[in-house]
Amino acid sequence: MIYLDNAATTKPDGECVKAAEKYLYTQYFNPSALYKGGYGLQQEINSAGKNIVSLIANTENFDCIFTSCGTESDNQAIFCGGKRGNVVVSEGEHSAVLSAVNELKQRGIEIRYAKINADGGADKQSLPELVDEKTSLVSVMHVNNETGAVNDILSIAKAVKAKNKYCLFHSDGVQAFGKIPFKLSGDVDLYTISAHKINGVKGCGALIKRKNLAIKPYIYGGGQGQGLRSGTENVFGIKNFEFSAVKKYTQITENYKIISELNSLLWEKLDKSLFIKISGENSSPYILSVSAKGLRGETILHECDDNGLLIGTGSACSSNDKKRFSRTILACGYEESVADGVLRLSLCSENTREEVLAAAEILNKVVANRKAMMA
Amino acid sequence: MIYLDNAATTKPDGECVKAAEKYLYTQYFNPSALYKGGYGLQQEINSAGKNIVSLIANTENFDCIFTSCGTESDNQAIFCGGKRGNVVVSEGEHSAVLSAVNELKQRGIEIRYAKINADGGADKQSLPELVDEKTSLVSVMHVNNETGAVNDILSIAKAVKAKNKYCLFHSDGVQAFGKIPFKLSGDVDLYTISAHKINGVKGCGALIKRKNLAIKPYIYGGGQGQGLRSGTENVFGIKNFEFSAVKKYTQITENYKIISELNSLLWEKLDKSLFIKISGENSSPYILSVSAKGLRGETILHECDDNGLLIGTGSACSSNDKKRFSRTILACGYEESVADGVLRLSLCSENTREEVLAAAEILNKVVANRKAMMA
Repeated sequence: MIYLDNAATTKPDGECVKAAEKYLYTQYFNPSALYKGGYGLQQEINSAGKNIVSLIANTENFDCIFTSCGTESDNQAIFCGGKRGNVVVSEGEHSAVLSAVNELKQRGIEIRYAKINADGGADKQSLPELVDEKTSLVSVMHVNNETGAVNDILSIAKAVKAKNKYCLFHSDGVQAFGKIPFKLSGDVDLYTISAHKINGVKGCGALIKRKNLAIKPYIYGGGQGQGLRSGTENVFGIKNFEFSAVKKYTQITENYKIISELNSLLWEKLDKSLFIKISGENSSPYILSVSAKGLRGETILHECDDNGLLIGTGSACSSNDKKRFSRTILACGYEESVADGVLRLSLCSENTREEVLAAAEILNKVVANRKAMMA
Repeated sequence: MIYLDNAATTKPDGECVKAAEKYLYTQYFNPSALYKGGYGLQQEINSAGKNIVSLIANTENFDCIFTSCGTESDNQAIFCGGKRGNVVVSEGEHSAVLSAVNELKQRGIEIRYAKINADGGADKQSLPELVDEKTSLVSVMHVNNETGAVNDILSIAKAVKAKNKYCLFHSDGVQAFGKIPFKLSGDVDLYTISAHKINGVKGCGALIKRKNLAIKPYIYGGGQGQGLRSGTENVFGIKNFEFSAVKKYTQITENYKIISELNSLLWEKLDKSLFIKISGENSSPYILSVSAKGLRGETILHECDDNGLLIGTGSACSSNDKKRFSRTILACGYEESVADGVLRLSLCSENTREEVLAAAEILNKVVANRKAMMA
C-alpha cells in the first residue's frame, strides 16, 4: 500500500506513541487532582505547551491552549475573536473556518470573502482592502489544504494591522506546522495547529495565542487550560503531540528537502497529456494538487485504491458535504471539468522514491485507461 | 499506592487500550477519506455509536454524537439547547454545566437554580415548579460528582415535560454511565457520557441525543458526526470508549455489588468520632463523601498522598477555580467547617477489600494526628 494522503492524516510515529504510553498506563491521574501525581501531570502539560510554542515563536510572547483538534481551535478563534462588525476570511479557508463564519453570519456578523489566486493562495494586495475600522477578525490560512499554496501570513497580518490595529489576526496553520519553516510575529494573534497532521495521534490540537490577548473560552467548565479550555486534559494526546512536534522540528529542513524532491519527481513522472497541475510554483511541497481534466476524481481515487494507492480528491473534511466540486478549486478560477478531476497527492518524509515512481505509474495507467474507455 | 479517586478519572483498562491500538498503528486513515480504509473506519465509528447507545437506550430512538469529553458534551447541550427564555439547572450541577449557564446568563438567558437536598440530590418536588412556558432547557445531572446522590432523572424529566413539552431535558450522566443500571426514556433528550470515567482513555466523550431532536452543532467544520460535531474523529479514543463501555456493561450488576460492599466496609472502618458522612443512603456506591469536620480537606489529602493513598476533596474539576469551599457541599446546607473538611473517596471494581481497610486506617490515623496537633 502506498499512502499519499498525508494532508488528510498521517500515520502516528510509533516512537512518539510509545513515549506517551505511560500517560495511559501508569500516569493516568486527573491533572486537576491535588496530590503529587495529578499536579505533576499539570506541570507536564504546561511544559508540553511551552515546548510546542518554542518551535514557532518566542515563549515570552505566546501561549498554548490545548484543544481536541484543529477544527475546535479554528472555532475558538472564529467565535471568540469575531464578536462584532465584520470578519474577513479568504475564499480558500478550510471548512472549519468557513462553516464557523457561516454560523457567525447567521448571528448578524458581516462576512467578507477575500479572493484567492489560481494557485489557491490569498490575494495579498486585495485582502487588506476589505479590512476597515469595524473588522473584528481576519482569518487567513497559512498553507492551503487543497492546493498547498503558502500564504505569506506575516506580511498579510502586518498589512491588516496597519489598517486596523484592534482587529485580531488568526491563521489556520494545520498544514504548515512541522512542515514549513517559519516563526510567528507579533502581528499574529491566534494560530491553529493539529497533532495528527504531523504523525501525532488524532484527538489533539492547539490554539497558539499571543500572551497579552484576552479571549474567551469556547468550552466552559472546570477551568482547565488556564480557564481557556475546560475538560479533563487528554494527557496522552498532549504529550504525544509534544513529542511528535519536537521530532518534526529537529528534521524540518531535511524533510523539506526530501519532500521537495519527491514532489518534483512525482510531477515529473505524471503524464502531462493526462494531468494539469493546480499547485503553484510556491506551494508547500507536501501537497501536489493535479487534475485529470474531464474525468471524475472520485472514480480515479477508487481505482487507485484498488491498485494499492491511497490519495485524496479535495479536502478529506469536505467529503461529508456531498458537494461534487471543490469550492476552493472553483474559487481558484478553474472550470467545473477541471474541479471534477482534482486529485490531491500529499506526502510525508516516510514516503520513498520507489513509492512515488509506483504511484505515478498507477495514476498514469488508471487515468489513461479511463480516458480510453470514454473515447 | 491505593487509588480512591476514581470519580476524577480511572485507570485505563489495558485490554481495551490494546484492542484499540490498531487504530493508532495500522488503521490510521482519516474516516472522511473516500477509499475503503477511510470508509471502513467511518462504519466502525457508526457501529461504536450504536453499540454505546444500545447499552442504555433503544438505538431506534437515540443517536450518539462523539465529542472530546464530558465537558464538551455538556457545553453542546447547554449552548445548543438553551437558546431562549430561561434555563433550569440544579445547584449541584458539575462546573461544565454551571460555567456554561453562567455564560448563557451573560447573553441574556435567565438561569433558574433548583435547590438540592442535604445529600446533594436535586429536590424532585420543587424543581419542576421552576419550569414554565418560557423554559427552553432543563439540565439535571444523573449522579452528583461530589456526593454520589442519584437523581431520579426519568421522573424529573417526566414532570418537566408535563409542565412544558417543548422544553429540552439534558442530564450529565458522566458518573452514572457504566456504573448505575438504568435505561433512558423518551423524556430525556440529551445525555452526557465520558470514556475516562469508566476505564477508557481521556479525550473522548459523547452526547446521546434523542433521534427526532434537531439541535445545532457546537463545533462547525467538515460536517463529521452527521454534521453535529466537526473535526477529524479520534478513532482510537472512540473505539476504546466502545470497548470500555461494553465491558463495563457486561459486569455492571456484579460491579455494583462489589462496589456497594467496598463502600460499606470503608464507611464502617472510618472512625465516627472523626468523620461525618455527606453521601446519603441512596447515593451511588462508587462515591463516598465524608467530612473531617473542622479540618482542611486539602491538608488531609496531601498527608494521605504521603502515606500512599490518593483521594479527592470536592470535584477534581473544581480545583482550578481556587475557591476554598465546595459550592455543592454548601448548597447541601452544610456549614463552612464541614465543607472545608470534605473528602471524596471514590471506588472502582479493581479496588480490593485490603485496599479499603488500609485506606480507612490511613485516613483515621492522619485525621486523628491532625486533630491532636490542633488540640
